[in-house]
Amino acid sequence: MDDVVIRTLEKVTLRDPILVEGLPGVGNVGKLAADYLRDQLPAKPLATIYSKFFPPQVYVSEEGIIRLVSNDLSYWRAPAAAQHDLLILGGDYQGISPEGQYEITERVLDYCHALGVREVFTLAGFAQGRVVEEPRVLGAATNAARVELMKKFSVVFSRNDPGGGLIGASGLFLGLGRLVGMEGVCLMGETSGYFVDPRSAEAVLKVLARVLHLDLDFTALQSKAKEIDRIAQKIHEAEQHSGESGTPGAPSARDDLGYIG
Amino acid sequence: MDDVVIRTLEKVTLRDPILVEGLPGVGNVGKLAADYLRDQLPAKPLATIYSKFFPPQVYVSEEGIIRLVSNDLSYWRAPAAAQHDLLILGGDYQGISPEGQYEITERVLDYCHALGVREVFTLAGFAQGRVVEEPRVLGAATNAARVELMKKFSVVFSRNDPGGGLIGASGLFLGLGRLVGMEGVCLMGETSGYFVDPRSAEAVLKVLARVLHLDLDFTALQSKAKEIDRIAQKIHEAEQHSGESGTPGAPSARDDLGYIG
Amino acid sequence: MDDVVIRTLEKVTLRDPILVEGLPGVGNVGKLAADYLRDQLPAKPLATIYSKFFPPQVYVSEEGIIRLVSNDLSYWRAPAAAQHDLLILGGDYQGISPEGQYEITERVLDYCHALGVREVFTLAGFAQGRVVEEPRVLGAATNAARVELMKKFSVVFSRNDPGGGLIGASGLFLGLGRLVGMEGVCLMGETSGYFVDPRSAEAVLKVLARVLHLDLDFTALQSKAKEIDRIAQKIHEAEQHSGESGTPGAPSARDDLGYIG
Amino acid sequence: MDDVVIRTLEKVTLRDPILVEGLPGVGNVGKLAADYLRDQLPAKPLATIYSKFFPPQVYVSEEGIIRLVSNDLSYWRAPAAAQHDLLILGGDYQGISPEGQYEITERVLDYCHALGVREVFTLAGFAQGRVVEEPRVLGAATNAARVELMKKFSVVFSRNDPGGGLIGASGLFLGLGRLVGMEGVCLMGETSGYFVDPRSAEAVLKVLARVLHLDLDFTALQSKAKEIDRIAQKIHEAEQHSGESGTPGAPSARDDLGYIG
Repeated sequence: MDDVVIRTLEKVTLRDPILVEGLPGVGNVGKLAADYLRDQLPAKPLATIYSKFFPPQVYVSEEGIIRLVSNDLSYWRAPAAAQHDLLILGGDYQGISPEGQYEITERVLDYCHALGVREVFTLAGFAQGRVVEEPRVLGAATNAARVELMKKFSVVFSRNDPGGGLIGASGLFLGLGRLVGMEGVCLMGETSGYFVDPRSAEAVLKVLARVLHLDLDFTALQSKAKEIDRIAQKIHEAEQHSGESGTPGAPSARDDLGYIG
Repeated sequence: MDDVVIRTLEKVTLRDPILVEGLPGVGNVGKLAADYLRDQLPAKPLATIYSKFFPPQVYVSEEGIIRLVSNDLSYWRAPAAAQHDLLILGGDYQGISPEGQYEITERVLDYCHALGVREVFTLAGFAQGRVVEEPRVLGAATNAARVELMKKFSVVFSRNDPGGGLIGASGLFLGLGRLVGMEGVCLMGETSGYFVDPRSAEAVLKVLARVLHLDLDFTALQSKAKEIDRIAQKIHEAEQHSGESGTPGAPSARDDLGYIG
Repeated sequence: MDDVVIRTLEKVTLRDPILVEGLPGVGNVGKLAADYLRDQLPAKPLATIYSKFFPPQVYVSEEGIIRLVSNDLSYWRAPAAAQHDLLILGGDYQGISPEGQYEITERVLDYCHALGVREVFTLAGFAQGRVVEEPRVLGAATNAARVELMKKFSVVFSRNDPGGGLIGASGLFLGLGRLVGMEGVCLMGETSGYFVDPRSAEAVLKVLARVLHLDLDFTALQSKAKEIDRIAQKIHEAEQHSGESGTPGAPSARDDLGYIG
Repeated sequence: MDDVVIRTLEKVTLRDPILVEGLPGVGNVGKLAADYLRDQLPAKPLATIYSKFFPPQVYVSEEGIIRLVSNDLSYWRAPAAAQHDLLILGGDYQGISPEGQYEITERVLDYCHALGVREVFTLAGFAQGRVVEEPRVLGAATNAARVELMKKFSVVFSRNDPGGGLIGASGLFLGLGRLVGMEGVCLMGETSGYFVDPRSAEAVLKVLARVLHLDLDFTALQSKAKEIDRIAQKIHEAEQHSGESGTPGAPSARDDLGYIG
């Protein structure tokens, strides 16, 4: 078996497409944002990516139908007035080994390059280790011009964050992308790192929408954020009630948080 | 060395063969069922599968003779009136790394595809984390028609189970099978997950026998189940006796459980 | 880099050579035996085996000179009256991953096959988890004829030992050897499993010497065994003295044990 | 993707170049020394080495610009009177798996061999597990002549150190280097092993400078060493003050140590 198998579902020609990547990671911010973008535009299925660097796993739908874990590329044709169509990469997993991360990223980049992609936006969460009320969007880019451009969209470039660099797909798509002639930006929504964070995903997506002139309705994402708030509040009250605010309380409510999104 | 080596023991031509997979896993349900099926039909050795993705290990028989760990394909010629011959995949191990799982599964699927296989049944256990008196058989399938068909055989399709999907060979044979044009069903016998479970294997095999119109004698499997019951009963009594029903008691009897099957 | 690199040091033609394998493992029995055999015959260097499946490590001699970790094949020309020359495989490590074990073993077997090897003896320790005063030699073989032959040399074939089979090079050289047309025997010296065991190595080597009609002087190996006894005795006394016979005492003496051999 | 990708930045012809390797490791001694050497000469960028055996990571500069983790070769043209130009290998990481270490080392050695390298110096730290006031430089070499030569430069060849040999790039560049016809020396600066150690790097580099007739200014490295001393002193005082000299104190000051260098 090839290490990475990309199955094209539809042959398309795109106008200077931009790749937007959002895979599972910190607070699931990147995946939440990319999936939401795909559903809102909406984008259409373009290709499915299988790999032996994903877990040997199938998901089962509520109807009992199995599906091999994968990453997925969708495309969106922008209105005639716009310059760039979009490709959106989402999926179930990042590669589960370092080598797998490199292999999958390079194969997807090659595939996207052949479709004309020269610009990449990667979406991710940035764990602050504390509750973040108003998540800022931090940035990193492949060159100084993009840094300056992103600052105009209120993206924060911090001298110290992210201190250890970016680990995983969101960094690698930019780092390996440069080697094949792509430039790009990573947008990182601040998040606690403790649970899935639709509010951080919204912050990231709002920046992206302004940069790419996309008109998105955020209502559904905001509902999801409120649902999380409601559960978090329950946990807080349960902890207050039990007088153990510093220790885990109400595990059942807390457990819910991991499954939303 | 090739990653996966398949040694054909006999060249055969089969009529629209169906593949039945049962490898070690939860409660050893899949392996118990597949081995029992092979012995009862009986099926004949067709090919041996070696791989560097299995442990570097040989087994030693009671006579002192070594055998490299492997998976094994057997075949059974159905009576003239029947439509499908059978291929049965059993063995000592599943691949011990994610990549290994993918590689072995794909190589075996390719081999079976060349023999004409277009339909796969995978057999497995489903861990409930509690004693299961009357194991139900849960299902997952590659398409809606098979889901409906299986429901007629009392296979349970639960909205929530298996929640995290299927991990390992039983899922992968269906997930990768679809990519090479095979359809199929996974039959999962409920089991505690704490020890080998011939009763769950019997439940799974009874469904399969009805679906495939096989006439099987379950006496030996039922004897094995009773032996397990007897040992479990001993453990229970030992625990009662020592007044520590919640803690491990009678380790020697308990240890036996792991080796039966 | 090739996964396994075999550097031939001398081109030789051998008469129906038999391969004797002894690599690091339980009690270092196999390695002690193979190294002692090589030194006593003495055998001459034939080839050096490097692999990326060994640790990325060099050893430094007392003179300060480095040497990349390796396995090593030596050869010994038997007297004219004898039928079989010998090849001896020793070395610093077994492959450190399952795949590595398979790859290295198969490459070495292919190399030896080309030199005419059709018979393999693998030497190993068998951990009993208790002090063994008079180590027996347990056996496993590739066919019934060899089992019967070995019984004549007092090799013990136990119905239950080794229960879990053989893991590592000593099993794999037989298991993979059969796939390329070699037959063979594994000789396992009983040992505690707690420290290196020259006495067990002697027991193994005495069987091998009788089988292969080799005339070996065991004096040096027996001296080494007595040295171990002396240190073990010291530890025992220290423990008695401190009244903590069940807990570790005299760590410095105990530490010595790991470095002898 | 190739396992190791070497991107040449400038095509150069060098006079009998010597390779100096210094990658992250114990006390970061090798990397500190190699980076300092590169900056002082100064050496110019020659090639960048990417690999899927490095972590899937990008670093972000203070300006917000990303860079894929890599190793880097620089070159320095020696004055006309000298015999040898220099190649310096530094970088962010060693390969993160044993196989990766072998693959990267061999690919870099091949590349350097093609540039004419026949001699290698590897720089490393040697952990003593205690504070080292005046770090000695220990050595290991590929042959006796080099051992004797290094002794003249006060390099210590100890019968027992390093007892377990050298693990990682500094050993492997010599061990694999010999297989492609290179000779060389490993210079190991004694260090505590607890934090980055510019003083040990200075000791190593002073030996190298004398051997290679390099005229280096050590002021900046000495400043860095004094900064470490100052922080270590603070920690010591904090521990004295709190009366817990044996336990960790002043974690904030102690934390600083890990980030310097």
